[in-house]
Amino acid sequence: MSADNSARVSVLGLGAMGTALAAALVDAGHTTAVWNRTAGKAEPLVARGATAVDTVAEALEADVVIACLLDAASVREVLDPVADRLAGRTLVNVTTTSPDQSRELAAWAAGLGAAYLDGGIMAVPAMIGRPGSSILYSGSRAVFEQHRSLLDLWGESAYFGEDAGLASLYDLALLSGMYIMFAGFAHGAAMVAPAGVTAGEFAQRSAAWLSAMTGQLAGLAEVVDGGDYTVEGQQSLEFSSLDDLIAAAKAQGISTEPIDMVQNLIQRQIDAGHGKEGFARIIESIKHPA
Amino acid sequence: MSADNSARVSVLGLGAMGTALAAALVDAGHTTAVWNRTAGKAEPLVARGATAVDTVAEALEADVVIACLLDAASVREVLDPVADRLAGRTLVNVTTTSPDQSRELAAWAAGLGAAYLDGGIMAVPAMIGRPGSSILYSGSRAVFEQHRSLLDLWGESAYFGEDAGLASLYDLALLSGMYIMFAGFAHGAAMVAPAGVTAGEFAQRSAAWLSAMTGQLAGLAEVVDGGDYTVEGQQSLEFSSLDDLIAAAKAQGISTEPIDMVQNLIQRQIDAGHGKEGFARIIESIKHPA
Repeated sequence: MSADNSARVSVLGLGAMGTALAAALVDAGHTTAVWNRTAGKAEPLVARGATAVDTVAEALEADVVIACLLDAASVREVLDPVADRLAGRTLVNVTTTSPDQSRELAAWAAGLGAAYLDGGIMAVPAMIGRPGSSILYSGSRAVFEQHRSLLDLWGESAYFGEDAGLASLYDLALLSGMYIMFAGFAHGAAMVAPAGVTAGEFAQRSAAWLSAMTGQLAGLAEVVDGGDYTVEGQQSLEFSSLDDLIAAAKAQGISTEPIDMVQNLIQRQIDAGHGKEGFARIIESIKHPA
Repeated sequence: MSADNSARVSVLGLGAMGTALAAALVDAGHTTAVWNRTAGKAEPLVARGATAVDTVAEALEADVVIACLLDAASVREVLDPVADRLAGRTLVNVTTTSPDQSRELAAWAAGLGAAYLDGGIMAVPAMIGRPGSSILYSGSRAVFEQHRSLLDLWGESAYFGEDAGLASLYDLALLSGMYIMFAGFAHGAAMVAPAGVTAGEFAQRSAAWLSAMTGQLAGLAEVVDGGDYTVEGQQSLEFSSLDDLIAAAKAQGISTEPIDMVQNLIQRQIDAGHGKEGFARIIESIKHPA
């Protein structure tokens, strides 16, 4: 291991994610203190080489304090009682928060003289430290740069800027894409179910198909960034009419809501006279709500 | 090339997809006749080794006739004038059609004594014959089995059953998942745009993230197929509340339609008393429309 593992770290919050983050640090040789509101969660980590501490105050005696708690409110509940000890400390908060909550926490930390880096984890606990795990950061650039080798232990690290809310915003934008994709999968599985196709069989084919189709996102994005939806070679909004898909869903007796959502985005652009322009233009229906 | 390329084939319809299909056949050594309603489209294929024919009747003098036309109506328009020559012929129709249209075409072909296989192409033309291309078939099992090596030239071939509508149904179910995923991407790109993130940067990260998350589909499907949404280890519907995502989208001033769609599917299950059960249960909201 050539990376610098001299930083003493502590992890607040030992749910499945906090435990995975702490385990990666311990395994890399960092001196790691762990704390959880309720006892017993630390035992597997202690067996691995971590030190369990009983109080948050003790956990603050580290070069980097990592918070992986339930929500923004619990970050304040855990740290407010020791607020006078935060001056000069470095807090990396990977608790799931909204962009505004991240900004509020950054301002609160700044007021106490602590350096604050906000993180959004794009992985499930089992993926931490493995290929496919990526973690988005914003807030203190100095903290990100100084502790980059530590952060890289968890996955691919990306930094978005000093605005502490950016990582959360990006996190939520990716998460919403995931939930919407899952709903699209459920819709397809419901469509083929009456024909005797199991969800498992459909999932296997969907996973391969949707993965392949993520290859189209760069092309859609190029049109959006170019700002000209009339460039050659695009599938037009008119050609993208989803009437056939909606009719097939109706014929199967299932809800058309997921595909109606897309059709409405398309139709508003057609109604505004842009039917011959590219499908990528649906983003205008989203940027400018009806 | 060890595959059997003795079958004489013809391709009706030389749009981008028909041209790609014909090119793969020519390249594999099949004697290939090509026809298009308007002239000029055949030239690149003739240069490659295909034979252009002027009439549909000539195109029928083949072991396998492939139709890749605009829609179901154009299949009938092109073939009805030569209907008396279809007896004993083998028709592989990869024109995009609805499940019911595929069934109607199968019945029409049967009435004329022709064997009929319906195909749904899950690829863009540039993918034909390359990794990631898959083609779904239903209808005549005999045709699928006899000409499997020919069909495999275009991509991974899958056969779903004698009901000619199954391939189209499956095709539409996968396509709707794609459009829904694209809308989810557009929603995320619109969410981060005000923070100065380009669609191109977001596309790169989304493609990796969504591809990774297709790995979750098998787990969701396992719960659906098991029929018990209370099995351990699932993310509950209550935990999956998308209020934070919706609030963040509103704060960015963009439409919440794509994520509202998912939230509505979740909420109906919570309202029905299933909030502690797994997220996979959203499929019940789709199978049983409100």
